[in-house]
Amino acid sequence: MAQKPSIPKGTRDFSPLEMAKRNYIFDTIKSVFLLYGFQQIETPAMENLSTLMGKYGEEGDKLLFKILNSGDYLKSAPDDLLASKDYIHLITKVSEKGLRYDLTVPFARYVVQHRNDLQMPFKRYQIQPVWRADRPQRGRYREFYQCDADVVGSDSLLNEVELVSMIDEVFKRFGINIVIKLNNRKILSGIAEVIGAPDKIVDITVAIDKIDKIGLDNVNVELAEKGLTQEAIDTLRPLLTLSGTNEEKFATLESLLASSKDGLKGIEEIKFVLDNVTALNLKSNVELDVSLARGLNYYTGTILEVKALDVEMGSISGGGRYDNLTGVFGMDGLSGVGISFGADRIFDVLNSLDLYPADTIATTKVIFINFGDKEAQACLQHMAQLRAAGISCELYPESSKMKKQMNYANAKGIPFVAMVGDNELTSGTVSIKNMSTGEQQSYTIEEAINLLEN
Amino acid sequence: MAQKPSIPKGTRDFSPLEMAKRNYIFDTIKSVFLLYGFQQIETPAMENLSTLMGKYGEEGDKLLFKILNSGDYLKSAPDDLLASKDYIHLITKVSEKGLRYDLTVPFARYVVQHRNDLQMPFKRYQIQPVWRADRPQRGRYREFYQCDADVVGSDSLLNEVELVSMIDEVFKRFGINIVIKLNNRKILSGIAEVIGAPDKIVDITVAIDKIDKIGLDNVNVELAEKGLTQEAIDTLRPLLTLSGTNEEKFATLESLLASSKDGLKGIEEIKFVLDNVTALNLKSNVELDVSLARGLNYYTGTILEVKALDVEMGSISGGGRYDNLTGVFGMDGLSGVGISFGADRIFDVLNSLDLYPADTIATTKVIFINFGDKEAQACLQHMAQLRAAGISCELYPESSKMKKQMNYANAKGIPFVAMVGDNELTSGTVSIKNMSTGEQQSYTIEEAINLLEN
Repeated sequence: MAQKPSIPKGTRDFSPLEMAKRNYIFDTIKSVFLLYGFQQIETPAMENLSTLMGKYGEEGDKLLFKILNSGDYLKSAPDDLLASKDYIHLITKVSEKGLRYDLTVPFARYVVQHRNDLQMPFKRYQIQPVWRADRPQRGRYREFYQCDADVVGSDSLLNEVELVSMIDEVFKRFGINIVIKLNNRKILSGIAEVIGAPDKIVDITVAIDKIDKIGLDNVNVELAEKGLTQEAIDTLRPLLTLSGTNEEKFATLESLLASSKDGLKGIEEIKFVLDNVTALNLKSNVELDVSLARGLNYYTGTILEVKALDVEMGSISGGGRYDNLTGVFGMDGLSGVGISFGADRIFDVLNSLDLYPADTIATTKVIFINFGDKEAQACLQHMAQLRAAGISCELYPESSKMKKQMNYANAKGIPFVAMVGDNELTSGTVSIKNMSTGEQQSYTIEEAINLLEN
Repeated sequence: MAQKPSIPKGTRDFSPLEMAKRNYIFDTIKSVFLLYGFQQIETPAMENLSTLMGKYGEEGDKLLFKILNSGDYLKSAPDDLLASKDYIHLITKVSEKGLRYDLTVPFARYVVQHRNDLQMPFKRYQIQPVWRADRPQRGRYREFYQCDADVVGSDSLLNEVELVSMIDEVFKRFGINIVIKLNNRKILSGIAEVIGAPDKIVDITVAIDKIDKIGLDNVNVELAEKGLTQEAIDTLRPLLTLSGTNEEKFATLESLLASSKDGLKGIEEIKFVLDNVTALNLKSNVELDVSLARGLNYYTGTILEVKALDVEMGSISGGGRYDNLTGVFGMDGLSGVGISFGADRIFDVLNSLDLYPADTIATTKVIFINFGDKEAQACLQHMAQLRAAGISCELYPESSKMKKQMNYANAKGIPFVAMVGDNELTSGTVSIKNMSTGEQQSYTIEEAINLLEN
């Protein structure tokens, strides 16, 4: 026998059960996106390398999956590069296309390419796989879905309010308790400004984040090691011990950032978002978290992140505002704000908290046992009626032993088994067995529909 | 300004309108698949080249998109192959993975890889994009979706009956009038057998297919040119002029194929399918078509194809039975039968016949005009209530001029516009304008929900 086939490392097959759960996740998110007026687009898996390269840093360029040109891919490859096996400089000679690395760059490309057909503000969502040649490890895949919603062409902070409300609605539907953490890039800039260490923002946010784990003193030691002056560390102290309600945090921040125009602007922005969000009485806690710094170079205003409360897990959603999505493609001045849902992590959270609704794994509602061709033909007639009533059903295709057919029904988790034998053929009825209670009874087709519809 | 970005030739962006239509198509097909007990799987976009190569013929191998190995992809490339620019033999040195070319080979690989977890018969459906480095032309893309349903692990012809019934249901839901054409590979073998020209089957089916266009005499000339003897041509005559009801056709065929065991078996099989299908009173015509020969080398039993009646278009669905799906991966004896829906062609048919239901292009139901922060906050409260009732809505994020906001509503096809100004703030009401009638009236939120729910 040939070797058992396999799939590339870091990729996955999804079984019917996994697909049912994934569909539940994506369908839930999609229905909320639609409720908030977002519209779906899709872009090709392959983009020109000229679109992708240089957008994710040097490391990102390496992680792009590149597609070998069709036909004679070596025809434009210079002899000297081949002779020296200069694989780096040969890449663009043998490959013009790559698989998308995320949904953001293709979206930016889409907006620029279709600018004349788009109504601004443009509220789009997109749910598609992306590919990264990362080293595969637990929870990190080379193919995974991203699930993004963005509004571009509007500076209004009401977009942030809507996005926070949308996140709340999504996780309410999932039954996952969350906290939504908010920050603002301008607050981080302000902090850097007042302590005179603009290049230390990442170190500072990392330090703030560690307070709970290692304590204030150790954090201060770390900050000193990173090169912060004692004066800067002293100035930072109120920030490191920031606590209490959002209002109390704001009071501390406002005093700390009093001299920074940028910092005060950031506070004003985040207050606007929080005020409006508070008025909506969301289910989730929404709180200021000045240690939040994701994608620092990318975001220019609001930064947000979502953590599940009842399970240990990295952020399950996040996003923020950016100033110039499309500048890199020659279209300046387009601001936007967006969020992304981490489908794989949400999948894990729902699994570990066992939160899937019972009907997620909707399989066939009823299977008809096959007693032979004549009976099967009668079953097909009944099935047409059940299906017209929206009841999913199937006929075991072979007239195998009863045990084998029942095993199939069990393995597939089918809750009802229907039997049409001689008696039923004569009376035009069907015997239905409830697989969980073991009860079995004879029904007319109309009665059967009533029974199975519920 | 930088050059306007573009996408690789043969690929497509899908706009919100196109996505709404495509979602309608896939959702309709999926719901029918579920009604018939099929379960969804997904496989990775990338497969090992060892899985893909050699499965689609020499031409197919060339049309596979190959992915350049990560890192130093030249490290296993022999110097002499590089020096001679032997791009063909270098392929497997620089590339280990390719993009899937169809859903059938990945499905076969899936079945073998997960054989121990699968309950046979396994009824799976799969809707995913595939990639082919074909020369792009009108209606032929390098990335397109396939939409397949298969039953493997069962020889029963009841599977064919179910699939024909399923096709009928899908196109009934679309409102597309179709004819389902059936043939059987064994009938074609039988014909080859009785005229003593087993290698001429393709020529013969092509000829039969041309009868209506060029007439019997010209077809016979063609057949003679292809090397058929006069005796063979005479024997074929009743086949070429096959007409009438399915019963009449069968009578002719049975007499023609009386000496072929294989041929008679084929007739028996197709009769079983037709008898059972006829008893189901389908909406579609189901007819025998002995000129049907798609994928001759692949199919071993039933062959079927679907044509739209009211529009000129190639087949919009097709499939058949195969004997040994998984043999190439070392697992013999697994028979199956499957069908595939041509999503792009169905898209075109629905467009040209204008058959999309009115609510396909469901966009936001109501947009709230933005008169300023205070009014906006009240709008957000109302919107929370509307959304709780399942009504999609959005707030224009900027307090722009009325005209601009109305233009946005128009461009997005939003049917209702809601306004909350000073009066409405005081009375807790909302003014709603019906964009198609121009009517405008003031409502309480409860009344508004009633109005918009319908």
